[in-house]
Amino acid sequence: MIAFFYSIDELHETLCKNPRTLELIKGLTHALHGFARQTKLTHAEWAATIDFLTRAGKISTPARNEFVLLSDTLGLSVLIDELEHPKPEGCTEGCEPGPFFIAEPPIIKSGGSLSAPGTTGERMWFSGSVRDTEGSGIPDARVNVWQADGDGLYDVQYSDPNVANDRGCIPTEHDGTFNYRGILPTAYPIPSDGPVGDLLKMLGRHPHRSSHLHFHITAPGYDSLTSALYPSHSPFLGTDPVFATRKSLICELVEEKDPKKWKEMGFENSELQGVSRIWVWKFDFVLPTVKQVEDLKKSIQA
Amino acid sequence: MIAFFYSIDELHETLCKNPRTLELIKGLTHALHGFARQTKLTHAEWAATIDFLTRAGKISTPARNEFVLLSDTLGLSVLIDELEHPKPEGCTEGCEPGPFFIAEPPIIKSGGSLSAPGTTGERMWFSGSVRDTEGSGIPDARVNVWQADGDGLYDVQYSDPNVANDRGCIPTEHDGTFNYRGILPTAYPIPSDGPVGDLLKMLGRHPHRSSHLHFHITAPGYDSLTSALYPSHSPFLGTDPVFATRKSLICELVEEKDPKKWKEMGFENSELQGVSRIWVWKFDFVLPTVKQVEDLKKSIQA
Repeated sequence: MIAFFYSIDELHETLCKNPRTLELIKGLTHALHGFARQTKLTHAEWAATIDFLTRAGKISTPARNEFVLLSDTLGLSVLIDELEHPKPEGCTEGCEPGPFFIAEPPIIKSGGSLSAPGTTGERMWFSGSVRDTEGSGIPDARVNVWQADGDGLYDVQYSDPNVANDRGCIPTEHDGTFNYRGILPTAYPIPSDGPVGDLLKMLGRHPHRSSHLHFHITAPGYDSLTSALYPSHSPFLGTDPVFATRKSLICELVEEKDPKKWKEMGFENSELQGVSRIWVWKFDFVLPTVKQVEDLKKSIQA
Repeated sequence: MIAFFYSIDELHETLCKNPRTLELIKGLTHALHGFARQTKLTHAEWAATIDFLTRAGKISTPARNEFVLLSDTLGLSVLIDELEHPKPEGCTEGCEPGPFFIAEPPIIKSGGSLSAPGTTGERMWFSGSVRDTEGSGIPDARVNVWQADGDGLYDVQYSDPNVANDRGCIPTEHDGTFNYRGILPTAYPIPSDGPVGDLLKMLGRHPHRSSHLHFHITAPGYDSLTSALYPSHSPFLGTDPVFATRKSLICELVEEKDPKKWKEMGFENSELQGVSRIWVWKFDFVLPTVKQVEDLKKSIQA
């Protein structure tokens, strides 16, 4: 007598010994089978999907993974960050890190410059703080910042990708504050010459991200924050291709035209040639503790 | 005032002009987001999934597509065939064609041989018919048969993949019957040296398909049938890695040891050297009309 596993669930429940693997494969097959049944997916549509996935694999490189782009543009990357890092009320919202994150960039003291001399773009001064939910500053928090230059390029996209620029890790001062001199980031599109670009076109969507600063902030005892900030004057804010633009992360920038103030910000004469304004960007980050997030996760599970 | 599309549905409903594309993208994002929320998918698990998909793309070739394998092993290929070709009661069940299907193989007259002289394997005689749901034979139905040889290899896997063997299109006689001489197919595993093989291992599953004959049958006015038949003595019948083995497709084969009968089957002396038995395999295929399937699809939609 042959034991027949007609049901994919029955097969997996019998053979798969790891409870988490079983949970995931059951969840995934239910989701995909449900999708196929609900939409009455045709063979031609499924064949086109398989062709899409194959092309996505072929075009991927270590520097440009098309499946990460797909995850981003389907809103999955943001969702998974939300699930892993739910935010208690009052905390800064997160988003996905994107493909240009580097875990250990150069350490730069608060007050320093993130941009090498001659970097394209308008001058900017960023002044921020890292605080807990009670409003107290967190000292020695590690603020990993990375951004595109005035041409919309990250350092890793330069001809020599090993030279860090517009990137650094800034430890906060004893009161939780930090500041740095840099360049206003410029909007750039996600790569749209591959299957994900074709998909966006089919969906009537554009590939343009708003200009933004990336942040990854860690401090012992606190839940790490991956996020990005957007200037309110940037285009494409409402139709972000990766669903990472949140209202709470959009900042009003101020133009500072007083050269005395520029000196107080630490700008050197060599940085100010031909400059008629400095963009001032301020933001206070609020991090939950690890325990606050654990408690929140438990309450979501219950 | 910026129009914000926080909801992925709202974005697609506003921008996507093609109703079917909109239906598919909404269905897919709901399914994947629902899966992530339900399983509380972690960032590490998602990163491993993206790595899996990337490796699947890299290992794929025109002759071995890893995403087709993935679709097969998740039961999706069989499901999509069911959705496209639902079967009225009494009709032969279908399954996915697998990677070795060729649309226009050599035409072979009923009674001929599908296997070139010297093909490895035990001798077999297949005798079948193609009928409608009333039991009437369908004349001149095109029976496209393909199968592995006694070594578990298809012709397209031979060193010269352009030589057809164990493959052909047999038109049925005026009464809907057909028969051919050939080789008993042997069990073989699906490719398991890639990410899909790794997944099967994680799930406690094996890659071994039961031995089988593939059929793709077409006749004007009838819904085409893609299916496969399995001998009841084949191993792995209950745990098919691609979920294509159905009880109704498993056949009891009979050993014919009488050389007089071999001659009636059309075997030539050159085919019978060292032969002590011929496996006799019989099956009657039942095809629904296009209209029967359309009516069934409508009743499923309603």
